[in-house]
Amino acid sequence: MNNEFSPFHNERSKYQPRLPKALQGQVQIQPVSGSAVQIDAEIQKLFPTTTGLETVKLVSNDSSTAPAPGEPITVGVVLSGGPAPGGHNAIAGLFDALKKINPANRLLGFLNGPIGVIQGDHVEITPELVDQYRNTGGFDMIASGRDKIESDEDIERCTRALSMLGASALVVIGGDDSNTNAAVLAEKFKARNAGVQVIGLPKTIDGDMRNDIIETSFGFDTAAKTYAGLVANVARDAKSAKKYTHIIKLMGRAASHVALEVGLQVRPNLTIISEEVEQRGWTLNQVVEQIVDVVVRRSEAGKNYGVIVIPEGLLEFLSDFKVLLQELSILLRDSEEILNAYSSDEDRRQFINMKLLSESARVYATLPDSIQHALLKPDKHGNIPVSQIETDYLLMDLVKLRLKELRLEGKYKGQFAPLHHFFGYEGRCVAPSNFDAEYCYALGYSAAYLIQGGLTGYTVFGQNMLAPTEEWQMGGIPVTSMLNLELRKGKMKPVIKKALVELEGKPFKKFAAERDNWVVNDAYRFVGPIQYYGPPELADARTITLRLERGE
Amino acid sequence: MNNEFSPFHNERSKYQPRLPKALQGQVQIQPVSGSAVQIDAEIQKLFPTTTGLETVKLVSNDSSTAPAPGEPITVGVVLSGGPAPGGHNAIAGLFDALKKINPANRLLGFLNGPIGVIQGDHVEITPELVDQYRNTGGFDMIASGRDKIESDEDIERCTRALSMLGASALVVIGGDDSNTNAAVLAEKFKARNAGVQVIGLPKTIDGDMRNDIIETSFGFDTAAKTYAGLVANVARDAKSAKKYTHIIKLMGRAASHVALEVGLQVRPNLTIISEEVEQRGWTLNQVVEQIVDVVVRRSEAGKNYGVIVIPEGLLEFLSDFKVLLQELSILLRDSEEILNAYSSDEDRRQFINMKLLSESARVYATLPDSIQHALLKPDKHGNIPVSQIETDYLLMDLVKLRLKELRLEGKYKGQFAPLHHFFGYEGRCVAPSNFDAEYCYALGYSAAYLIQGGLTGYTVFGQNMLAPTEEWQMGGIPVTSMLNLELRKGKMKPVIKKALVELEGKPFKKFAAERDNWVVNDAYRFVGPIQYYGPPELADARTITLRLERGE
Repeated sequence: MNNEFSPFHNERSKYQPRLPKALQGQVQIQPVSGSAVQIDAEIQKLFPTTTGLETVKLVSNDSSTAPAPGEPITVGVVLSGGPAPGGHNAIAGLFDALKKINPANRLLGFLNGPIGVIQGDHVEITPELVDQYRNTGGFDMIASGRDKIESDEDIERCTRALSMLGASALVVIGGDDSNTNAAVLAEKFKARNAGVQVIGLPKTIDGDMRNDIIETSFGFDTAAKTYAGLVANVARDAKSAKKYTHIIKLMGRAASHVALEVGLQVRPNLTIISEEVEQRGWTLNQVVEQIVDVVVRRSEAGKNYGVIVIPEGLLEFLSDFKVLLQELSILLRDSEEILNAYSSDEDRRQFINMKLLSESARVYATLPDSIQHALLKPDKHGNIPVSQIETDYLLMDLVKLRLKELRLEGKYKGQFAPLHHFFGYEGRCVAPSNFDAEYCYALGYSAAYLIQGGLTGYTVFGQNMLAPTEEWQMGGIPVTSMLNLELRKGKMKPVIKKALVELEGKPFKKFAAERDNWVVNDAYRFVGPIQYYGPPELADARTITLRLERGE
Repeated sequence: MNNEFSPFHNERSKYQPRLPKALQGQVQIQPVSGSAVQIDAEIQKLFPTTTGLETVKLVSNDSSTAPAPGEPITVGVVLSGGPAPGGHNAIAGLFDALKKINPANRLLGFLNGPIGVIQGDHVEITPELVDQYRNTGGFDMIASGRDKIESDEDIERCTRALSMLGASALVVIGGDDSNTNAAVLAEKFKARNAGVQVIGLPKTIDGDMRNDIIETSFGFDTAAKTYAGLVANVARDAKSAKKYTHIIKLMGRAASHVALEVGLQVRPNLTIISEEVEQRGWTLNQVVEQIVDVVVRRSEAGKNYGVIVIPEGLLEFLSDFKVLLQELSILLRDSEEILNAYSSDEDRRQFINMKLLSESARVYATLPDSIQHALLKPDKHGNIPVSQIETDYLLMDLVKLRLKELRLEGKYKGQFAPLHHFFGYEGRCVAPSNFDAEYCYALGYSAAYLIQGGLTGYTVFGQNMLAPTEEWQMGGIPVTSMLNLELRKGKMKPVIKKALVELEGKPFKKFAAERDNWVVNDAYRFVGPIQYYGPPELADARTITLRLERGE
């Protein structure tokens, strides 16, 4: 009973991720001819040496004998941004492949995210260290951080640190921003002949770093399954106790892939998808009316309980709220002096109220006092703290008001007892599902071969991922081929476009075609917690999103 | 992709719970001679016909040939109180055993809890119905409710309903209150020769319905494992992102078994146990100081993150808060008229403040305004709405204040960013772990034999539960032998004493011996989600509480 590690840890550490066939023996890099895409001229200017590259695939080369190992190399790896299940396996795969290529190769883990690269803070990844973390969740082996390597000084310091350590490559494990950052680093290192290659891996539980080439980002599978399991448990509770309406907020600011996947898996009575809200131009009031409609219809069917799922970032997609935020942002910037001159929050609120255009004033007035006040307190960067607004509480307040009105009109006779949940942090560091464990291992493994092949400025991808692991196709896509210029804080910046939920995509269309049947019926599906063992239908299942997008 | 049921549901429905050997063939009831305990005279008066009974065990009787099935009987089953994992398996076990005893036996499920018995609302449990729910979580097969069958009129109506349906037995699946209620019903039915036996099953995720005879209540295993998995995920996130202090509230009002089990499994930096708080007479301030101490010590070790677990019911165990609540309760009752005469909440608050004794006034003044106001609004039964106080937010507010003070004094230089979680509803309706699936199945199965044996007023138990399922000993304990008289709302009532965490018990002692090592070290154990398949170390694990209490 005094084990340092849990039985789960001990059992999972025995799991050996299967490898795609192409990675099992000798591996060679095969450019996909004609895959170089047309790059925007502005992007070309920013990335003169790393544009025009071709996508590459990793194929097996078993005809050749093992090449003599070249000079041993030292590679650095860094975790960037929020944790996602599988990060440790990415490092383990990278480690194992580097050692397979040349047992004298070394892997250094930079600590606490990009700041670790800038400062040269690192640990050597040893077999003992990596073995403790195989198939585990979390990013705690070397920890993560949200700093960016942006300024010339940062890049100078990184170059120096990597050079001091003798590192000739850096693997960046991160999302769209971090992979963009990887492209910038690749370009700068190449431009100054620093002799450091940069390879990115696509990480994010949000599922929004993907495209025609990258089938999915790692971590999405595990996190979405975790949330689906929890939402299903809550749905079963709703149906058992029959007295609460559970409103469940799911992590995901920009994209609603997680909410959509959970919606498809569990079939809550209502699942709101931010992309639909934005495209249809729905207002706060329209969303409130949708929720009210669900509550009233269920109540008429004798069901004073239910499950409603909303994405964390909803508020910023509401048409009227967006305008309000824009107006507020300008007002707060332009009236800073006047606002500071007022002695009370109440005075400031009245001043703002007076200045807002009528439609925004109406929306603003709808909000509870505490939120009205909070919105007037920008952070040190001048950003309005939208994320501090508890969207679910706001919606429920407004739903309650509307139900009271309907009750007075005799149009609602039910009971409404909302309970709130937010699922996010409990899904980012779960031990990776078998899918994510193997995907991450293959991603890290592949990165070693892209480095061996001398490539830089690439993001690793997996394809054919509905098939068993052995049949996956791994490869690399030039990051610059994914870049677009977008306006960020007044400046045009190259960024990887986030993959949002497409209303014309198969997952959303299936959801849209079926959701009406889920409003009044209790069509909940109870999906259970992630299973790492047992029937392949459970242990090796793919997300519904992946299955629909890639063929089924 | 159009399956009505999830793959998890379909796979789990194939699971066949193993049965204890004693239940596999012919079963006979064996009284444990000398087991009848001394019963309080007052209890005897209340239960003249159902006291003085002996504990019984179910043993195999394979020497005898199968007895000719007697007259077929009809049994009712009802779910009472909050859901707990395994309820459906209890019904399935009851159903299967009744059919084994006599294929013509019938099982009726009363709908929505005890009110269903009173009103005679029921469904017949058919093979098709029960097969849909085998090994599933939730209470939704027949739903649960919190009504009690108390008044003479209620009992009269139950008697009539059961008689109309031809039911000669009722199985009550519930916690301490519901089993007490089962004893009352058994007595009343016997006293009026209603010809209805009553058998209870020990259900509660809180783990507080147990004693020397009943080793554990069902649902505790699954719920505690679920919460431990989630807390471990959050701990891993804390250690990966290194910027948040997670304060996690766990379901459990009266007893802290769940928090203790999670503490032992996961080893958060601090786990507060209500029973210890109460026995040591800790005040609100003392608990705040403990949390502050953990935050400061970790910060000095460079760790501005952490995990703190508190039980939902903590507030009511704080010595000063208890006194405040008592004073408030009396004040609100005695000053109702004066309070109603005041026109503003603020006036009411000032009045109360003036009337409180100085120590309580100090505690009251510590509370945020919103809580001060909330406490002055008793519910329709005159109860102060303590459960509406968000204990975790209250504690963090006070911790923040204290840290600010320490910072000014130069004694704290860290960062403190708390994040809140409440885990409860996501653990009550999980599919039962193999342990709970088999325990519940055996409980229901045993109930059928207690009924066949003509017993009434018994709660079913399992023993030897660290051993494999086949070696479990099932039996029945007279409910009256568990009853005590306690003051409830001014009246002496017979109740089953809740099993609280014992500070001298093995689980708490182990926790107390080790917890100092968990404060600054990140000794978190990552326990993973419940596994239903795979290595027995995971799939058939027992809780640490059970293992420590029963021998290891």
